Amino acid sequence: MLDKISYKEAFYRCIDNAKPTNLYKNIFVKDALREFLAEDILARRDAPVFSNSAMDGFGFKRSENKKLKVIKTIYAGDKYEDFEIKDDECVRIMTGAKVPDGIDTVIPIEKCVEVTDEYIVIPEIKKGANIRLKGEEIKKGEIIAKKGEEITPEMSALLISQGIVNVKVFIKPKIAILSTGNELKEPWEDADEEEIYNINSHSIKALLEKNGFSADLIGIIPDTLEKTVEFIKNLKNRYNVIVTTGGISFGDADFIYEAFLKNGLKPFFRGIMVKPGRPTMVGAIDDTFVFALPGNPLSSYLNAFALMIPTLRKLSGAKKYFYNFAYAKNKSGFKVNPKKDHTILGRFECGEWEVYKNYKYGSGMVSALSCSNSLVILGNKEIVKEGEMLKVIPFNIGFCQNCDFFND
Amino acid sequence: MLDKISYKEAFYRCIDNAKPTNLYKNIFVKDALREFLAEDILARRDAPVFSNSAMDGFGFKRSENKKLKVIKTIYAGDKYEDFEIKDDECVRIMTGAKVPDGIDTVIPIEKCVEVTDEYIVIPEIKKGANIRLKGEEIKKGEIIAKKGEEITPEMSALLISQGIVNVKVFIKPKIAILSTGNELKEPWEDADEEEIYNINSHSIKALLEKNGFSADLIGIIPDTLEKTVEFIKNLKNRYNVIVTTGGISFGDADFIYEAFLKNGLKPFFRGIMVKPGRPTMVGAIDDTFVFALPGNPLSSYLNAFALMIPTLRKLSGAKKYFYNFAYAKNKSGFKVNPKKDHTILGRFECGEWEVYKNYKYGSGMVSALSCSNSLVILGNKEIVKEGEMLKVIPFNIGFCQNCDFFND
Repeated sequence: MLDKISYKEAFYRCIDNAKPTNLYKNIFVKDALREFLAEDILARRDAPVFSNSAMDGFGFKRSENKKLKVIKTIYAGDKYEDFEIKDDECVRIMTGAKVPDGIDTVIPIEKCVEVTDEYIVIPEIKKGANIRLKGEEIKKGEIIAKKGEEITPEMSALLISQGIVNVKVFIKPKIAILSTGNELKEPWEDADEEEIYNINSHSIKALLEKNGFSADLIGIIPDTLEKTVEFIKNLKNRYNVIVTTGGISFGDADFIYEAFLKNGLKPFFRGIMVKPGRPTMVGAIDDTFVFALPGNPLSSYLNAFALMIPTLRKLSGAKKYFYNFAYAKNKSGFKVNPKKDHTILGRFECGEWEVYKNYKYGSGMVSALSCSNSLVILGNKEIVKEGEMLKVIPFNIGFCQNCDFFND
Repeated sequence: MLDKISYKEAFYRCIDNAKPTNLYKNIFVKDALREFLAEDILARRDAPVFSNSAMDGFGFKRSENKKLKVIKTIYAGDKYEDFEIKDDECVRIMTGAKVPDGIDTVIPIEKCVEVTDEYIVIPEIKKGANIRLKGEEIKKGEIIAKKGEEITPEMSALLISQGIVNVKVFIKPKIAILSTGNELKEPWEDADEEEIYNINSHSIKALLEKNGFSADLIGIIPDTLEKTVEFIKNLKNRYNVIVTTGGISFGDADFIYEAFLKNGLKPFFRGIMVKPGRPTMVGAIDDTFVFALPGNPLSSYLNAFALMIPTLRKLSGAKKYFYNFAYAKNKSGFKVNPKKDHTILGRFECGEWEVYKNYKYGSGMVSALSCSNSLVILGNKEIVKEGEMLKVIPFNIGFCQNCDFFND
């Protein structure tokens, strides 16, 4: 019989069994998007590296003098010898230009009372205004990014501003995707009216790639137990994660499960009380993680998304592997079977969420995925009311056809 | 003087001037993630392609008979000749297997009253139960994806299930990124204590790549007006979008603006009443879009994110180019200057949003970007109260260190 654990329990059994890798490699920052740092990154230099002007304006030493003689112009990038500046003098200075020693305040051109080529007249201004002080953002030696953080475009900008072009990142697991079902055709093959295309391998590979993982499509599992045992034996030494789809519920030719067992598989669970996606087995052969996902395209995709991706992140050394969620107002009420947990597709737009087709779609319906952009995971509920606030996990939150995203 | 338009006005001037391309190319679905469809996609086949069993169980023609003789077993992928089935007969049938003509109902094994190798005894069951009917999800010829939609992993699964391996997508604009500032060092170059790295080009390139665009880093703009005019003249024939950073406010050597004008630039605006990012110019030379972004790393990144990415999506034929947002409860109150609009960084986690460093960070601070995962665009406000609901645009919503995303 299949296990009857909750979806939450299944999630934690996956996560708790995932031991992060300790292998790392060196990589150029420009190629490192979506990788996870294998080291804390220390600042190599202060930021700003020197005190500089935040505006185009005039720099001076703040005093009682309000009429100041312009003695010099300093552009961004100018290098110059130290010079002395008197209380009744100032320099024209551009945004980003180094502020000379002795100057403590900058006034932007448009705030001056009078501006000529020779002198300016200034109003009262706070000492220190419009100067970005050396090191005020970052001090040399401080931690600017932590081990386990994901490299985003934003972090890569920070690393580059520090002249850091190379970082240590964790080596991600090698992933193999297998299919079951000799009846499946590959999408590039001819299929007659009664043949079905192999969707799962391809959609799971696309999901993995979107999440910064890559995977090899190994093909179809051999059709006898003996050959399958041998096949898995070879794979488990080459891959850190094996993903299969289909053939894991009872009634199907279930020698796949047996072949895993004969290779030393320790299952964490086999079966989840969830709709869709009940026939799912996750376990490990030594350090090799095995995800045996359901054969139904929707079920396998949802479990890959909700259970496998977080686990792969943890295996890859990521510090963050829980899905972030947004609260959204439920747009139209619907009913579910309270004896099961549910992973439910819908559209999240402008703070509202609407279930796909009133939750009347089957586990084979790939179109449900394509028409949705988010997931709600539900337990212990029979009725989800209109107007109720739900925790929504967006997978394609990105863009809308029309959305007033301004707070005004 | 710089224009004083609002951020919203700047956004709409960008969007309204962006004319979508009509150029398309053919591409393999597996390589088409993040591309925009240049055609409606019609279903090539019904889905399901044949009526099939949704469960492992027994199929029969529903009648008064409750004791049924098992005459045959049908596995997924089995092909067979039509055969007749009597009212007191049934077939063992597996999930996904084709349901024979004449059979209208399937009962799962576990719901049978009695199961032997020869016969089963069944309870009352609804006609049509557990059968997925041919075409119930998709009818051959119906539109399954629309022109202008973005190809996601989920859509690619749908296309593959239809045996569609090749699609027409819009050709995205060719983008050139230029820098200003002869003083800048590239991150791989040695820089002394007083030299600054060229962050902007690299961070904007990373932002573009994250959004499915690619760009060429052209390098630094020549240092005279004459050379710059010539340089831009050559570029505008090779690129559909030119992005510059820095050198667009007054006081700087502003020959870049002049060089664009001499090349026929029509500005949509020059200057936005926003903090940070005021010195920003957007316009076009014939069909070539020009984004002249500020020199401050944070300002240029934020305007690239909020103004340029949506515009590039529209230029690329995308149907959706407005940022989707999530409502979030503001975690700690802060003040802003009500005379300007503001693009404000913060962290969006588990339905709450917290401004970065109480909004006391400067426009040069790249660390603000790296430590944040979302943006709030604010207008006409002086105080943002604790507990207030804000529209938040996430740019790295992804994952949290710990987040209870289950609705239970």
